[in-house]
Amino acid sequence: MHNLSVGVLGASGYAGRELCQLIEGHPSLELVFAAAHGQRGQSVRIGKKTLTFIATEDAPLEKAELVFSALPHGSSLEWVERACSEGARVVDLSSDLRPGNDGRLANAGCVPYGLTELYRDTIRGAQVVANPGCYPTGILLALHPLIEKKLLEPGSTISVTAASGVTGAGFTPRPDLLFAEISEDFRAYGVGNNHRHLLEMSTELKSRGAANDLVFTPHLLPVARGILATIVVRLTLDLDDPLAPWREAFEGEPFIHISDTTPALHDVVRTNSVRISAAKAANTKVPTLIVTSAIDNLTKGAAGQALQNANLMLGLDEQLGLIA
Amino acid sequence: MHNLSVGVLGASGYAGRELCQLIEGHPSLELVFAAAHGQRGQSVRIGKKTLTFIATEDAPLEKAELVFSALPHGSSLEWVERACSEGARVVDLSSDLRPGNDGRLANAGCVPYGLTELYRDTIRGAQVVANPGCYPTGILLALHPLIEKKLLEPGSTISVTAASGVTGAGFTPRPDLLFAEISEDFRAYGVGNNHRHLLEMSTELKSRGAANDLVFTPHLLPVARGILATIVVRLTLDLDDPLAPWREAFEGEPFIHISDTTPALHDVVRTNSVRISAAKAANTKVPTLIVTSAIDNLTKGAAGQALQNANLMLGLDEQLGLIA
Amino acid sequence: MHNLSVGVLGASGYAGRELCQLIEGHPSLELVFAAAHGQRGQSVRIGKKTLTFIATEDAPLEKAELVFSALPHGSSLEWVERACSEGARVVDLSSDLRPGNDGRLANAGCVPYGLTELYRDTIRGAQVVANPGCYPTGILLALHPLIEKKLLEPGSTISVTAASGVTGAGFTPRPDLLFAEISEDFRAYGVGNNHRHLLEMSTELKSRGAANDLVFTPHLLPVARGILATIVVRLTLDLDDPLAPWREAFEGEPFIHISDTTPALHDVVRTNSVRISAAKAANTKVPTLIVTSAIDNLTKGAAGQALQNANLMLGLDEQLGLIA
Amino acid sequence: MHNLSVGVLGASGYAGRELCQLIEGHPSLELVFAAAHGQRGQSVRIGKKTLTFIATEDAPLEKAELVFSALPHGSSLEWVERACSEGARVVDLSSDLRPGNDGRLANAGCVPYGLTELYRDTIRGAQVVANPGCYPTGILLALHPLIEKKLLEPGSTISVTAASGVTGAGFTPRPDLLFAEISEDFRAYGVGNNHRHLLEMSTELKSRGAANDLVFTPHLLPVARGILATIVVRLTLDLDDPLAPWREAFEGEPFIHISDTTPALHDVVRTNSVRISAAKAANTKVPTLIVTSAIDNLTKGAAGQALQNANLMLGLDEQLGLIA
Repeated sequence: MHNLSVGVLGASGYAGRELCQLIEGHPSLELVFAAAHGQRGQSVRIGKKTLTFIATEDAPLEKAELVFSALPHGSSLEWVERACSEGARVVDLSSDLRPGNDGRLANAGCVPYGLTELYRDTIRGAQVVANPGCYPTGILLALHPLIEKKLLEPGSTISVTAASGVTGAGFTPRPDLLFAEISEDFRAYGVGNNHRHLLEMSTELKSRGAANDLVFTPHLLPVARGILATIVVRLTLDLDDPLAPWREAFEGEPFIHISDTTPALHDVVRTNSVRISAAKAANTKVPTLIVTSAIDNLTKGAAGQALQNANLMLGLDEQLGLIA
Repeated sequence: MHNLSVGVLGASGYAGRELCQLIEGHPSLELVFAAAHGQRGQSVRIGKKTLTFIATEDAPLEKAELVFSALPHGSSLEWVERACSEGARVVDLSSDLRPGNDGRLANAGCVPYGLTELYRDTIRGAQVVANPGCYPTGILLALHPLIEKKLLEPGSTISVTAASGVTGAGFTPRPDLLFAEISEDFRAYGVGNNHRHLLEMSTELKSRGAANDLVFTPHLLPVARGILATIVVRLTLDLDDPLAPWREAFEGEPFIHISDTTPALHDVVRTNSVRISAAKAANTKVPTLIVTSAIDNLTKGAAGQALQNANLMLGLDEQLGLIA
Repeated sequence: MHNLSVGVLGASGYAGRELCQLIEGHPSLELVFAAAHGQRGQSVRIGKKTLTFIATEDAPLEKAELVFSALPHGSSLEWVERACSEGARVVDLSSDLRPGNDGRLANAGCVPYGLTELYRDTIRGAQVVANPGCYPTGILLALHPLIEKKLLEPGSTISVTAASGVTGAGFTPRPDLLFAEISEDFRAYGVGNNHRHLLEMSTELKSRGAANDLVFTPHLLPVARGILATIVVRLTLDLDDPLAPWREAFEGEPFIHISDTTPALHDVVRTNSVRISAAKAANTKVPTLIVTSAIDNLTKGAAGQALQNANLMLGLDEQLGLIA
Repeated sequence: MHNLSVGVLGASGYAGRELCQLIEGHPSLELVFAAAHGQRGQSVRIGKKTLTFIATEDAPLEKAELVFSALPHGSSLEWVERACSEGARVVDLSSDLRPGNDGRLANAGCVPYGLTELYRDTIRGAQVVANPGCYPTGILLALHPLIEKKLLEPGSTISVTAASGVTGAGFTPRPDLLFAEISEDFRAYGVGNNHRHLLEMSTELKSRGAANDLVFTPHLLPVARGILATIVVRLTLDLDDPLAPWREAFEGEPFIHISDTTPALHDVVRTNSVRISAAKAANTKVPTLIVTSAIDNLTKGAAGQALQNANLMLGLDEQLGLIA
């Protein structure tokens, strides 16, 4: 079979390296370049192969049918435009084109938000897709049936507490991410709705008609990968089967697993799965649900979903090269 | 100075061993026995000394002016009574006598709840004190100023997400607590208000006049010790200074530190401190606060607070033998 | 293609579960039973499937063309014999039939030692293979070229220090393997040549003509999986290229990678690879080499090598279902 | 009692911060400055106090009776000289003045090597002491009785494998020290006698009359603190009691504990102790010993031993402010 050529910009970070690995294991894609400005000339082992990074400026964009940009927020947009003008499709893993951000793509209409399960149809034909942030992926999918079915108590607060492995903070050396600082520690950050992903989520929720207050508190876990979100919501009614809305909304979805038991990071790391559970809170006056959602931040939360979107954009089977 | 004799029942668990270590380093206490039925005859090193466990039945209760019971829930009450009848004061670290539990102490009036900062006066003269659970300690102290000052929006939900190190699950060998099961994992448990501590907290909150729904979701962290609680509450008004209620309520408290920055486990492990911060949620219609609270589950959450209470009961300086 | 039926005895331990996962992902094998006496009736998720353990006594040995026994040392031999008498081939992951152990297989000739790269030809036709221990796998392969080429200084000591992840100690709940006991700790065990694997290795070395003293000191690492062995040997001569003996001995081996850089656990976990490096010690009078070798204890050190052997025994491509 | 004034240069690294904490808890010392060039103006919490770093150039050396220099290797010597010329005593934690290094102190005689238990007498009166490296501390103390008593087989190799927590690599942000790179990993480094500490140890061993080859292979552990050294040596004779040489050599030493059981990092972290054990290797032709030695790399391996030396230099009780 003819392999499709793809390239990766920003290939040396955690998401970029994950992309290179997924592409390497993909039956119908071929990696034609991996650019990493700061690490150009350096080599990494990807599976059995050795990959040498080139400078971003040297990336032969014209050779790729699709380019993944894992460049930093703010620097990505320019390269998305360059790749487009060379005729490539682009999956942008930065926040530049996501809901709530200011990025505007010159000479382009609306850029679909790459939350695959919700926007599959618009993604399929898109030239550019804005790949969602890691936290929004697990949280928006977990909230989707509640909004769709108008189950949230009007005016109530959606309280989201989430915890991420440290690869979510990127590969940039920072003293506070050294092993000795993270091991045996746990803390919240961006407390007070200050995290970049709050805006991405609240914009998306509003556009879907949810007017509830959203409170989002991320935490930093002493693990390498994985995100667990724990969501507390007040409902308009008492559900007989708390899992029914999710079972219904996501029936047949290959990467979404609705679970009787609370999901754990171990259930999802190194897969493109989202695992969701929900339980009714005992002893409350107002019907209240605790929804938990687990993903791998580097797979479904970044490179995996980017590949899922790329598969759709290239007319391939959505599941190719991904573990469910 | 004359040393006071104390004994420990249930000395081989994590809380029991922590108690033995704290007693060993305490300037005015002397450990006269350490009982651990299942491990009788076994020795452990506590600081420079070697300690040999005796059987619970062989514990010379009559020799101790105060007994700490770190026996399992359900088995402790009987021994609290035996120690009382031998004339000893008792700090019970089990849940048997805590709010919301069924334990009744024969021939005794009310047993004070040993949340030291809130019930110092009743603890001082008590013969028996029910030492709080680890989660309730950090959470109830964090909620205290909000209830005291009637800041919670009536009818709103108090959403508490908390994460504990694995010593909170005790020293009993369970396959799911093996290193390889916990490392690189994170999950919620007791989801749906099913944790034993929910009742302890809700009973206590009700007795203090708070009628709000409480939703409590504990999580298991891949760390040895420490608890972080993240609490989302809706307020009746917008606070100018979100830390003011805590600064006021806990002024002069040696073990409670109100912090501008979000507390981390590293700030509190191996101390008896509670570190609390609060931040206003941006972009919400209803004034909303995120309160974070960190303690060491084995110190302030168990053995440390037990010793703090014992100091009071024995007429000693409350801070003796404890790190603030 | 016709799938070959295989069964697993002792399927609930770490090696057993790894076997089930590898079989599930194998293109030509089909799992017909997974037996785990203590956990019969319990279910585990293996990839997308749910597997329910049956009792060992209920295992339909006659339905399997090949049986993997991951039963405990001492209990395995009996089941190896039962499976043989039902006509199945057997890969025994216990130590019962390994060099240096007393196990004798009734009515059977010599049982080949399943160090695949060294005994491929005898494994191919065998009815029963004794799968090597995890430590011996990485260590004996690392020592092989030195012995083959008679490079070891006669009479000198082979000093082997090795460190293993905790899955090497099995899934049995033991207090000393709880997360809080292992995290942030490191220690040697079996010090003084007391580990079971010492005999397996020294017997094998002797049978290959190496008369050197062997000193083996295993250590317990705070990681889930992986073994690193660090071997210090004195040589009869100074090698120009310290890697040459390994490059020569293992040329073309799909699972053995000779590396200029020191191997790390991250290079090999979740693969069936052995990664070996060697460096000359500077500033020594006698030519001395430090050889390092890394494997995943559950893959090449247990289930992976067992499958590699099974592939050979069943006439399949040795690499099927394994990651190099 | 009158407190003695001390200052710390290089106070922001792991050893520097440990020094500040130890000084803060010391009954007879007062910290008069903490200098950290790159972090001047930044504050850290040390116990209950907040410490603000000043620039190295601004350090009031003249105010300190003793200065600890935890400056980087190469930059320290100049500041040792400046502090001396201001009349201060100095404990230099860098390698600049250690055995095997080229550092020469102007206008000064020999600088004692601060391995306290071996050189107590020369340290007591010294103006400058070269504090040993972390690895040499645990290893040289473990080897001392073997050399003293001439137990090593002449011409035999001393094979030392050691593993250190990541604080040993310092607080400098490096991508390879990020949590996600270290967690679940283990590797050797400086393989081939390339580590800086090899020269420090071999120079010291030679000066004590040991002519054996020394092979030293350090490893990087996924723990924050602690060093375990595992040493294999061939002896001239078979010892009846393998611990006797250490018991004899270190009798009465407050910080050295000889142990029947193999020491673990958990036994020594956050103490100034060295814990040593030794076991005879079974099944060897030549009498062979495995000696294991554990220390906390930041305490006995750096700041703790520095304080132990400072206590001696200042005429204080050697144990003041240290945990045995």
